[in-house]
Amino acid sequence: MALERPKGKQLVADVFACQRQRVMFDRKSIAAAAERISPYVRHTPVLQCALGSDSPVTLKLELLQYAGSFKPRGAFNRMLTTPLPAAGVIAASGGNHGAAVACAARVLGVVAEIFVPAATPQAKLARIASYGARVVRGGETYAEALVASRVRQAETGALEIHAYDHEDVLAGQGTVGREFEQDAPGLTHILVATGGGGLIGGIAAWYAGSAEIVSVEPELCPTLHDALKAGQPVAAPVGGIAADSLGARQAGSLMFPIAQRFVSQAILVTDDAVRAAQRRLWDDFRLIAEPGGAVAAAALLSGRFVPPPNARVGVVVCGANADPATIAA
Amino acid sequence: MALERPKGKQLVADVFACQRQRVMFDRKSIAAAAERISPYVRHTPVLQCALGSDSPVTLKLELLQYAGSFKPRGAFNRMLTTPLPAAGVIAASGGNHGAAVACAARVLGVVAEIFVPAATPQAKLARIASYGARVVRGGETYAEALVASRVRQAETGALEIHAYDHEDVLAGQGTVGREFEQDAPGLTHILVATGGGGLIGGIAAWYAGSAEIVSVEPELCPTLHDALKAGQPVAAPVGGIAADSLGARQAGSLMFPIAQRFVSQAILVTDDAVRAAQRRLWDDFRLIAEPGGAVAAAALLSGRFVPPPNARVGVVVCGANADPATIAA
Repeated sequence: MALERPKGKQLVADVFACQRQRVMFDRKSIAAAAERISPYVRHTPVLQCALGSDSPVTLKLELLQYAGSFKPRGAFNRMLTTPLPAAGVIAASGGNHGAAVACAARVLGVVAEIFVPAATPQAKLARIASYGARVVRGGETYAEALVASRVRQAETGALEIHAYDHEDVLAGQGTVGREFEQDAPGLTHILVATGGGGLIGGIAAWYAGSAEIVSVEPELCPTLHDALKAGQPVAAPVGGIAADSLGARQAGSLMFPIAQRFVSQAILVTDDAVRAAQRRLWDDFRLIAEPGGAVAAAALLSGRFVPPPNARVGVVVCGANADPATIAA
Repeated sequence: MALERPKGKQLVADVFACQRQRVMFDRKSIAAAAERISPYVRHTPVLQCALGSDSPVTLKLELLQYAGSFKPRGAFNRMLTTPLPAAGVIAASGGNHGAAVACAARVLGVVAEIFVPAATPQAKLARIASYGARVVRGGETYAEALVASRVRQAETGALEIHAYDHEDVLAGQGTVGREFEQDAPGLTHILVATGGGGLIGGIAAWYAGSAEIVSVEPELCPTLHDALKAGQPVAAPVGGIAADSLGARQAGSLMFPIAQRFVSQAILVTDDAVRAAQRRLWDDFRLIAEPGGAVAAAALLSGRFVPPPNARVGVVVCGANADPATIAA
């Protein structure tokens, strides 16, 4: 027994050392990522507007990013910080991360294999394939596709590009926050959709408490909501209209401590509210946002998030890989 | 004969005095318009990108404007500088100007009647009606709708809001140029779609020679191209994919001298090039541009406009009132 305790302590110390070593996404690493990826990604614009609130709202139009979502930021940052093996890269994805990895692989001259779940819509499959990547159906859910991709990775030796739970991916996504602060200084609340938490984790790490970070998820994909309630990442239901982009099932282990510290609220919205937000973004802005891309706006438009007086609200519109026929009548 | 000459001279002098009096759109009036309309219009964002050219290109995303095109700028400026009669406002329009006038009328609390030609697509009719305006089919072409609207105007006493040939409308549209210069200083070439010439006239008046203003029109609607060739506004063919937004038939009399002075090239593009540009804006940017909104980009993408070395090219993407089903497969 006496022998056990030092061993146990050592184990805990090792885990913390490991975490300290691994969790390297902060303002500094995000700034470094921004410089690293700047030749490869778009600095997306912001738009001041009124959106279901008397307060002015600033939209970050990240849906105009390459590959139709914020995901190339993390994918490029990951692939630019690691030697790429001859076997190329491999990823599991509901679609957007896969498209981003495929896009980055093409630009950087390596092959890519993307494992997708059954829910991945046709528009995203086509987009991944358009970059020349190999697309593999890898099960019913993202979690299953991830397992399948890891079996395959062990065979090929390709570099795994995780969709969210890697510090370089998180630092890459954090560049959204950096640009947002640059272009719209003084925001008090930032509304961000959460799936596995790569985007909100990166943005929260950038703002680091200088603005309230508000997580928004569909009621049918309450990943971060459930994790914060449980005090740790837990398996959450995956379903509904945005499952392909926000159906990670479990919050990332690296982003979770950041979320505990810096995410002030985890709001849930209905699928109907998401559809209404998509419709509103089209009617009023002529923007085609996919369900996951409209989730943050839905919190404001549905009244689930009510800005306090004098709030200056930012909303990240983070994905556009939808079939417009599902939005515009 | 001797009596005639002074009379003739006097007539010419009167015409010039009248023109001097009327042509009041310049940087000063555009700056005043910008201040006047700022509570009512969006300052639309710019986006740096690569677009069919080695040179960097900056897009002015004016398609994100209220009512889906740049037109509210001119409509609001016109309606904010003139007392609005109880009979409200009346306009002829291929659709976008009508939607803008209807939108402004609703905001400013007056009624609106909009006369449209047969070519106005369903998406634009619906948009006009959504603002509560009365929509009237006024003939086959914009020119016929204009005549019909003037007959009706004589009955009702409503204020005519011309789609382009009025100094307040031109000054309003010129605010696009002002914002563009503000947000993307140092552009050497600005590509702008031309219909009646309100947008390009305003933008050319703003830049006033400090950047080359390049007019782009469909081959089937060569309004300004033909006018510059003839040395005066002339009736031009109206047809093809962008006729509803660019089918004015004849360049505005007020913008024409500005165009002669400041428009360096009048480029024509095919309808196929316009369709390809629409597709490219969707594939690469997730932007839904209507044909008229994609015409300027088409000049660059089709190679009809080749930027000289070291050019810094700006492209105004000016309208989004399209049915996405016609663009995204």
